[in-house]
Amino acid sequence: MTGKVKPPHANRGVLRKKEEEKSQLTSMVDYVRISFKTHDIDHIIQNVLHINREFMTEEPRGFYGYIGTWRMDMIKVFYSAPDDERGTLIELSGKGCRQFESFLECRGKTWFDFFQDCLNEKGNFTRLDIAIDDKKTYFSIPNLLKRVQKGLCVSRYRRVDNNGSNQIEDGSSAGTTIYFGSKKSESYLCFYEKNYEQADKFNLSYDDLEKWNRYEIRLKSERAHSAVCALIADRNLKKIAIGIISNCIRFVEEKGEGDKRKRKTSPFWLKFIGDVEKLQLTIEPKKDFYEKSRNWLQNSCAPTMKVILEVDRVLGNSRLLDVILNAEEGALGDSDLLNMIFNAKLQDKHEKMLETFLTPIHEMVV
Amino acid sequence: MTGKVKPPHANRGVLRKKEEEKSQLTSMVDYVRISFKTHDIDHIIQNVLHINREFMTEEPRGFYGYIGTWRMDMIKVFYSAPDDERGTLIELSGKGCRQFESFLECRGKTWFDFFQDCLNEKGNFTRLDIAIDDKKTYFSIPNLLKRVQKGLCVSRYRRVDNNGSNQIEDGSSAGTTIYFGSKKSESYLCFYEKNYEQADKFNLSYDDLEKWNRYEIRLKSERAHSAVCALIADRNLKKIAIGIISNCIRFVEEKGEGDKRKRKTSPFWLKFIGDVEKLQLTIEPKKDFYEKSRNWLQNSCAPTMKVILEVDRVLGNSRLLDVILNAEEGALGDSDLLNMIFNAKLQDKHEKMLETFLTPIHEMVV
Repeated sequence: MTGKVKPPHANRGVLRKKEEEKSQLTSMVDYVRISFKTHDIDHIIQNVLHINREFMTEEPRGFYGYIGTWRMDMIKVFYSAPDDERGTLIELSGKGCRQFESFLECRGKTWFDFFQDCLNEKGNFTRLDIAIDDKKTYFSIPNLLKRVQKGLCVSRYRRVDNNGSNQIEDGSSAGTTIYFGSKKSESYLCFYEKNYEQADKFNLSYDDLEKWNRYEIRLKSERAHSAVCALIADRNLKKIAIGIISNCIRFVEEKGEGDKRKRKTSPFWLKFIGDVEKLQLTIEPKKDFYEKSRNWLQNSCAPTMKVILEVDRVLGNSRLLDVILNAEEGALGDSDLLNMIFNAKLQDKHEKMLETFLTPIHEMVV
Repeated sequence: MTGKVKPPHANRGVLRKKEEEKSQLTSMVDYVRISFKTHDIDHIIQNVLHINREFMTEEPRGFYGYIGTWRMDMIKVFYSAPDDERGTLIELSGKGCRQFESFLECRGKTWFDFFQDCLNEKGNFTRLDIAIDDKKTYFSIPNLLKRVQKGLCVSRYRRVDNNGSNQIEDGSSAGTTIYFGSKKSESYLCFYEKNYEQADKFNLSYDDLEKWNRYEIRLKSERAHSAVCALIADRNLKKIAIGIISNCIRFVEEKGEGDKRKRKTSPFWLKFIGDVEKLQLTIEPKKDFYEKSRNWLQNSCAPTMKVILEVDRVLGNSRLLDVILNAEEGALGDSDLLNMIFNAKLQDKHEKMLETFLTPIHEMVV
């Protein structure tokens, strides 16, 4: 897989044959978002998308704080108000990616050329999805879930979510989806049975479903940007994709060492991963996060803290502070408010802010 | 079942004891949306909610096409533009329902009285959720799903969806949810393991989870309105709850007639349905009048307070708390964070929340 939209005509038959022999796995770019600090929409449309704006339509609304959109169906460019530092955002949904490939093909370009154009224009990749279609089906998704439930998955993630459906009539499965990692996090994997999804979408019977698994990699922020940089360097989408999956999860045998991390990788997983090396997406933290966190602490935390202290003063005779300072950990149950605080569930934004605030700047600088 | 917010004082002990003996099942109104054609928000707040608007805050944004909101935490009234036929919408989320019960209780009214008030003002119920808490646990949710997958559920629905989570480390379950019917439809049931949900919410260990299943009935549009009309007619939530659950699903034995519809109902299901019939509608009374703001304190203030304490712990060697407790006013300059807090400018929402938190409910009722 070279990342070419299509191989030159002369090679196509050969390539297809080789692919079929090899694996039946195909990979594709499935979602992209790139933000640019510039407000020069014309420039972005002309020099990055290379589409004639006359064929695009303008809409006086946007998303994520952008105020307007130039679009050609699912190929979209959002723009912000002139004094808004958001600038401009290119968004290609799954369908948008397929549509954009027509334009790439027409210009004899690849996704890698497009990604390079984006970087040249100081674009920042905020989302990248890569999808792998598996029509051989290296494994069954419900069986993979069973392996997870037997504790046979080794991962840097802590949790796996799953969705499933069953027909009430006979209880038969109507498709299973597994999420490795939290949907809210910067990266997660989504494995599902594309054949059932397609059958539901087009109202087809489940009786004659072709085998078809879909493995999706969803990357945000720095991880998306890192992956794009790796793609440009390597120009091999499938290798990068499997490298990411391989770095995230590994399935091991039931027997062996007590510590499952030391056990051998299951043959079915080895076969799927092949000889692709793990790909670590390193993250380059932003330098201005520290100041942002400080402002947030000052504008958001401090007032609410003041409120808590006031509530405590009025209702609790300052028992809260007394308890915080003097009590043993075990005795904290004394204060209702204190319990509330210690049991408080931090949202992602809180965790992020805390982490950022507590990381010395020099560790964030690259 | 009387639908009273609280039984008369004299009966309380008896009722609680009976309940425990009988079933451990409790039910509650868990979500309500009522739309009114009128744009007279004052009238709705005063004559339907009976809350003094001075204690509510206005926000220049709404949902579902409404342009603004009057709210007291999770008790919300949305309004639309003057020429918009949407009119006004009352929305009480789960938390909003619990909060609103404080006001009902204070006025000596029940949900049925409130529903009647809504109808009197030509309100149209567009959503009604009823929840049943099962702390005895008549069945295990994962086992119920297995029965579905064995084709042992008889239903007018065609499909069952499920969500689940597993810990990667040992594969153990982290909670299962079953949806009978489509989430997009006018009515569906949602059965889930509330104990896992609570553990996740409050970041508790799964080790010592108490048994706790939650069965929710979610009704929209005409189905919601019909259910409310039936509720008002006989002031009896149990008939509605039983009628809906029994109408929607039935679990049968594995052996018997080839047509499962003709098979006997499973004993475990009969026992559950039977006990539901004995269900008393009691609404968990508020522990104190400040419950209404407790959510806000817990969800908004407590996490940020925790962040501050953590920042102080790591960066300041707990000087913050030390200084708060021991220092003279003049010596506060010692702590950067403390200065930040004492100089914090409270926004209107903070002032309002503080005021609401510190005002007894009876002073807010109109």
